[in-house]
Amino acid sequence: MPHIALPPDLPGIVSGFAFRPETAKPMRELAEVLLRGPNTLTSAEREMIAAFVSSRNECHFCQASHTAAAAHHQQGDYAVVNAVKRDHRSAPISPKLKELLTIAARVQESGRQVTAADVQRARDQGATDREIHDTVLIAAAFSMFNRYVDGLATLTPRDDAAYDAMGQRMAREGYLGNRE
Amino acid sequence: MPHIALPPDLPGIVSGFAFRPETAKPMRELAEVLLRGPNTLTSAEREMIAAFVSSRNECHFCQASHTAAAAHHQQGDYAVVNAVKRDHRSAPISPKLKELLTIAARVQESGRQVTAADVQRARDQGATDREIHDTVLIAAAFSMFNRYVDGLATLTPRDDAAYDAMGQRMAREGYLGNRE
Repeated sequence: MPHIALPPDLPGIVSGFAFRPETAKPMRELAEVLLRGPNTLTSAEREMIAAFVSSRNECHFCQASHTAAAAHHQQGDYAVVNAVKRDHRSAPISPKLKELLTIAARVQESGRQVTAADVQRARDQGATDREIHDTVLIAAAFSMFNRYVDGLATLTPRDDAAYDAMGQRMAREGYLGNRE
Repeated sequence: MPHIALPPDLPGIVSGFAFRPETAKPMRELAEVLLRGPNTLTSAEREMIAAFVSSRNECHFCQASHTAAAAHHQQGDYAVVNAVKRDHRSAPISPKLKELLTIAARVQESGRQVTAADVQRARDQGATDREIHDTVLIAAAFSMFNRYVDGLATLTPRDDAAYDAMGQRMAREGYLGNRE
């Protein structure tokens, strides 16, 4: 049961957004810019970073919905994002994305964990400053979203089909609307 | 030295904001609503929550600047916010704020750490659902800001006077401008 009187039929972060529209607006805009704005990282790659961080924070709502969004940016294929969550070093992704995920894993623990060597390894695989910046900020932002969702004990669906439909909408329509 | 080529003369989060204005905008708006928007918690109380969480995340730039902002919402008095950072249970603050800070401390670790008993204790001291919501979100948002600032290894002034001037501007002018 949620810790406060959130709208009863809305899942996860959507209930927090409905409870407090003033804070929902900038949070939605941040998600939209980070995950769907113009970028040399694909939306699939950025959603994988979001799902990966959320999985490490054990936030079921966020990890399941962003896993589904990543999959729906890749024709509904869940195999790659599931492999990333299991072990990103052995997942079938680019060497650059592996190094960016390593940076994201550090940020998930603490910003202070990121080392110059981590950043150099990402750069050696072709990562730009802007890609490193956005990786740090996606990981930081999901450290917020995850804590918001779980800190209020929002309603967490357990039905995979619900997340699949949610991820499909997120991939297609983004974050500025009134849904996820 | 910062991990990426940030504008060289700007400290902390200001350099990240200048590097990527598209993400700066919603992050500034979120800080403004949470710390200075209409609220039954004073700005001093909300800045204390921000400084407290940043201190626990060992983010020097954020904790020093928001400590100064809290002080400047109280006629420049640093004693209360410093006491909160040392031990919020014994600080000279209201019983309600003590319970809200306990919730913030849980969120700093993980959203999953917040218990129904924590929330009940805050409610017993008069906290409203909206105050509990905003406390969770301030703690979550500083879990983002702190990771962003340190994950990029932004420039961190060590001079207390720099933070005092910064906090004075933050308390007076807020977060929507081109400074902090």
